[in-house]
Amino acid sequence: MSIAETIAIGSELLVGGRSDSNSLFVADALAAIGIEVRFKTIVGDDQSDIAGVLTTACRRAKIVIMTGGLGPTVDDCTREAVASVTGFRLARRKEAFESMRARLAQWGRTPNRGQLRQALIPSHAVVVPNPVGSAPGFMLTWRNARMISLPGVPSEMQAMMQQSVIPYLADRLNRSKQACSHPITRVTFHTWGLPESDVDSKLQGLIQKRTPIALGLLASPTEVLVSLTTRAHRSIKGAVLRSLEEGVRTRLREWIYAEGQDTLEEVVGRLLQRQKLTIAVAESCTGGLIGYRLTQVPGSSAYVDRGALCYSNQAKTDMLAVPARLIEQYGAVSREVAAAMATGMRARAGVSVALSVTGIAGPGGATETKPVGLVFIGLDGGNDDVTAKEFRFHGDRSVIRQRAAQAALDLLRRWLIARGEA
Amino acid sequence: MSIAETIAIGSELLVGGRSDSNSLFVADALAAIGIEVRFKTIVGDDQSDIAGVLTTACRRAKIVIMTGGLGPTVDDCTREAVASVTGFRLARRKEAFESMRARLAQWGRTPNRGQLRQALIPSHAVVVPNPVGSAPGFMLTWRNARMISLPGVPSEMQAMMQQSVIPYLADRLNRSKQACSHPITRVTFHTWGLPESDVDSKLQGLIQKRTPIALGLLASPTEVLVSLTTRAHRSIKGAVLRSLEEGVRTRLREWIYAEGQDTLEEVVGRLLQRQKLTIAVAESCTGGLIGYRLTQVPGSSAYVDRGALCYSNQAKTDMLAVPARLIEQYGAVSREVAAAMATGMRARAGVSVALSVTGIAGPGGATETKPVGLVFIGLDGGNDDVTAKEFRFHGDRSVIRQRAAQAALDLLRRWLIARGEA
Repeated sequence: MSIAETIAIGSELLVGGRSDSNSLFVADALAAIGIEVRFKTIVGDDQSDIAGVLTTACRRAKIVIMTGGLGPTVDDCTREAVASVTGFRLARRKEAFESMRARLAQWGRTPNRGQLRQALIPSHAVVVPNPVGSAPGFMLTWRNARMISLPGVPSEMQAMMQQSVIPYLADRLNRSKQACSHPITRVTFHTWGLPESDVDSKLQGLIQKRTPIALGLLASPTEVLVSLTTRAHRSIKGAVLRSLEEGVRTRLREWIYAEGQDTLEEVVGRLLQRQKLTIAVAESCTGGLIGYRLTQVPGSSAYVDRGALCYSNQAKTDMLAVPARLIEQYGAVSREVAAAMATGMRARAGVSVALSVTGIAGPGGATETKPVGLVFIGLDGGNDDVTAKEFRFHGDRSVIRQRAAQAALDLLRRWLIARGEA
Repeated sequence: MSIAETIAIGSELLVGGRSDSNSLFVADALAAIGIEVRFKTIVGDDQSDIAGVLTTACRRAKIVIMTGGLGPTVDDCTREAVASVTGFRLARRKEAFESMRARLAQWGRTPNRGQLRQALIPSHAVVVPNPVGSAPGFMLTWRNARMISLPGVPSEMQAMMQQSVIPYLADRLNRSKQACSHPITRVTFHTWGLPESDVDSKLQGLIQKRTPIALGLLASPTEVLVSLTTRAHRSIKGAVLRSLEEGVRTRLREWIYAEGQDTLEEVVGRLLQRQKLTIAVAESCTGGLIGYRLTQVPGSSAYVDRGALCYSNQAKTDMLAVPARLIEQYGAVSREVAAAMATGMRARAGVSVALSVTGIAGPGGATETKPVGLVFIGLDGGNDDVTAKEFRFHGDRSVIRQRAAQAALDLLRRWLIARGEA
């Protein structure tokens, strides 16, 4: 089994809210060819710190992929750290320099002093071409580890992984008859509507001891993610994995809204298209999030007609013909107004189905009877098929808004499935 | 100087696209009291891997903060890893058990077997109470390092950091007269509208060599972030830092839309409130994102009246009274339609100012003369003050939508500032 470690280099990744997304890409790309990232390290632009983590990484991993620290400025010192750990001297490499010069020429520039440094490559290293930007990467073998250094710009790093690093590693693994026939397989199920502990109880006893498949649960504001991960041989794991997948589906049937990379808005979009329906949304507390998510799907203009963000009461009356006396009588956050918003939107837009949300996202706006987190979701599917459901969400303003949008899209999903089966 | 390392524990952080946000929070919280996170490690739910990284961390850092692996399931093995590294035995701790039982009782539950494991604490460790969830944390000293173990659930970890860990560490640092008098200061400026290389050129020569202040630039789809970071003593750095801050402001004046933790929607919201204005938005390609961002600000109902997501041409005519012949003549994505959307929205909503966006987010929808990324942003401020600007954005569908929303809010910001100064 090939153990890998990623090292993300850059002081901005240590403090100030900037997260390292490169390692996620690298780990997924390696997993697909059977290489397991077991450790990820993040370190600042400090040559001796980088040298230290690199030494540690080479002790515990066979493949070490560094991203970042190859830029033209003086704080970029990955090259120097690699040289100091390995003892391989840095020298200007002709092929690296020429391709950099050609790239800059395309952009109408000539290399400046900083960029000249980018052509410095440790001896014994192979240059990894950069098909997108100017900084080349490199890879080399030191002691038992293969060290690969790539730029930190995501588009450059990704192109270099796909074009050079992955084919190279896959080929090496094949030749050494290593893990390549055992890629890691990970199957994921996205659930909504059950707390994590209930998902856990429903899955109790699914996996027998000694089955080489790991069950994982991960809760976030808008889902509980269930995963099955294995790296057993394909022929062994196929049948076992399929039966476990079926087990998860059976136990969590109504709560699984998507599998794998699918999103709830994509699932809903496909259901709408399959049934040749159009949709409009009327949002109050979600502020446009439902419309934004629905239209995030390419081609959604085929079924999304419009949306109304009716924040003021006047807007609810103007845009959706919600009777002012209904708002007076029940309040803007009420089952009655949610239903009237959906009905008004459906009639105005002339669509097949309209979805509505009204609620109190907080921190202000609560009353004695209506706490922060109280949300009503309405749906009008025509032919007097109108529903409005009450929800109570916990969390801060942002979390309540996210949960309300998720609940609304899930209500739509369930309605579409029931309609399709009827 | 106190060096810290964070260790985020959880196999889901290694593969499958889930990023570790806990370490970002921990690093920022520590920086505020003068503790510098120099290393971040991510490791899976594997006891011996965790033990390995913990040993490494204790060699290179004085403060090691672990998040995750304290849950009730068998794959949670941080407790066991700490015990194996330190040799401190695990035993059920009464205060941990009682507070957990009390918390679960509030929720109408009793501890199950997995939860009982959560009351196991290494000997010599101090229990860190969890004011939000059931799993307690703990801290202990081993060799020269202070090890702190917290749950991975962000809300629980954050509450425990704020209530227990930070006060404790600040107090220890004060007593040992260490770094606490030299907190790391980081000042940030959010810019929009200039490419990173132009921001870089404008800041050339600002910082003299040997000034103990680092200038950083970081580009993302919706901004170039400029930062000044220093950990020099307060009295030394105060004047120097202030003059550099002024230098950044002078050189980038019109492009800086916010400083520090401020967001563009908060800045715009304050400008609207100060001028007692109301707003409505008319969105096509941004799909509701502008409304969502404006209403993300607590209290935004004071100035946000409504929004229209008019995806279809019919919706533009219905909701905003955009003449159908205008759409026929110029196309839905045109300067003329953007202006008409803003004007129509302003008239319908009776607000002070209306903002509109129409564009081609792709991947489909481009024509020979109108490429993906072409966006028009309109603004109607009344009294014939109508503008519509053309933009050309690069990136995928999601990036183009984000940039269009950012450009629209920034156009509004500039208009509000000019109006306030007039």
